[in-house]
Amino acid sequence: MVPALDRLVEALCRLPTIGRKSAWRLALFMLERPQDELRDLADAVASLKANVRLCVQCFSYSEHELCSVCSSPVRDGLQICVVEKSTDVMALEKSGRFHGLYHVLGGSLSPINGITVDKLRIAELVQRIDRTQPHELIIGLGASTEAETTALYLARLLAEKKIKITRFARGIPAGTELEYVDQLTLTQALHERSEIVYR
Amino acid sequence: MVPALDRLVEALCRLPTIGRKSAWRLALFMLERPQDELRDLADAVASLKANVRLCVQCFSYSEHELCSVCSSPVRDGLQICVVEKSTDVMALEKSGRFHGLYHVLGGSLSPINGITVDKLRIAELVQRIDRTQPHELIIGLGASTEAETTALYLARLLAEKKIKITRFARGIPAGTELEYVDQLTLTQALHERSEIVYR
Repeated sequence: MVPALDRLVEALCRLPTIGRKSAWRLALFMLERPQDELRDLADAVASLKANVRLCVQCFSYSEHELCSVCSSPVRDGLQICVVEKSTDVMALEKSGRFHGLYHVLGGSLSPINGITVDKLRIAELVQRIDRTQPHELIIGLGASTEAETTALYLARLLAEKKIKITRFARGIPAGTELEYVDQLTLTQALHERSEIVYR
Repeated sequence: MVPALDRLVEALCRLPTIGRKSAWRLALFMLERPQDELRDLADAVASLKANVRLCVQCFSYSEHELCSVCSSPVRDGLQICVVEKSTDVMALEKSGRFHGLYHVLGGSLSPINGITVDKLRIAELVQRIDRTQPHELIIGLGASTEAETTALYLARLLAEKKIKITRFARGIPAGTELEYVDQLTLTQALHERSEIVYR
């Protein structure tokens, strides 16, 4: 009925988790907002890809050639944490507890879905290890079958290198009741149990 | 960490029902989309307000001076349905069952919230009735206290005019189980019950 509204609704519908009803609600909301605010959103959308690139060293999203983590003088270059995606970097940065550098693989091995070794940034990781000689490689992948496969592949590939390879602990996530934890996680939590030292 | 992403996330967060997490998901999704698609969305947002105006006759959203309903030769100009918002027009149009014209009030009377007679398009409605002499005014407002007040106010204001004033039926909404219907609705449904004619 109103083409300019329809056009916006169509464009919004293409985004994930936004159905036709939400798209309408958003479009009608925008109609009531000042033009400045819409201009702002439009510019942010249009210029997004021009202003976001991949860091040449760790391949996470960055504004410059080297991302803010890789170019920071206070980060520990001897620790590299391997993650799947840029968003994993963001999640770990938010925790504020990791002070080393990252390496974004771009996914996990899944030959059945066509994600083979050459599709991930594994060659780049090996070169980077040879070049920068870090002491520890922390495998910060998830707990899916693909992630486990990738972790094992990396561990075998890098076994010859003089580098300690560790991986994130498996266990019961914070705030979870035991009855909702699956059997595999329970087994791992039991297997990797740690001593409580009372002092 | 990546200003262009942060900026987009901030802009998206200002939209209703989009929290920080959804904003991040949307922003990261956009990053993976072709620039054409982003350009499209950005243009639709930026040009929205320039291309959407209010119809000079019924005050619903329109691309031209007169909206597509008001300018249609097949609509019945002798019936005017009074609604609160442009979105109500859209909902009724979607049903495809109303063939008259609309009048968008811009809200319901609520003096406690500063919405008095002069804040709504009531004077415009009276002028329009005098000018176009419709036969029936259908009050298509909701069932809130404010909507009821507005309906009664309009009925009294227009009592002198030679126009039939009707309002939407009150009753049990489609697909609702009786046990979930409130007392007032039940009372109205009982009061406005209609005969089943078996033929």
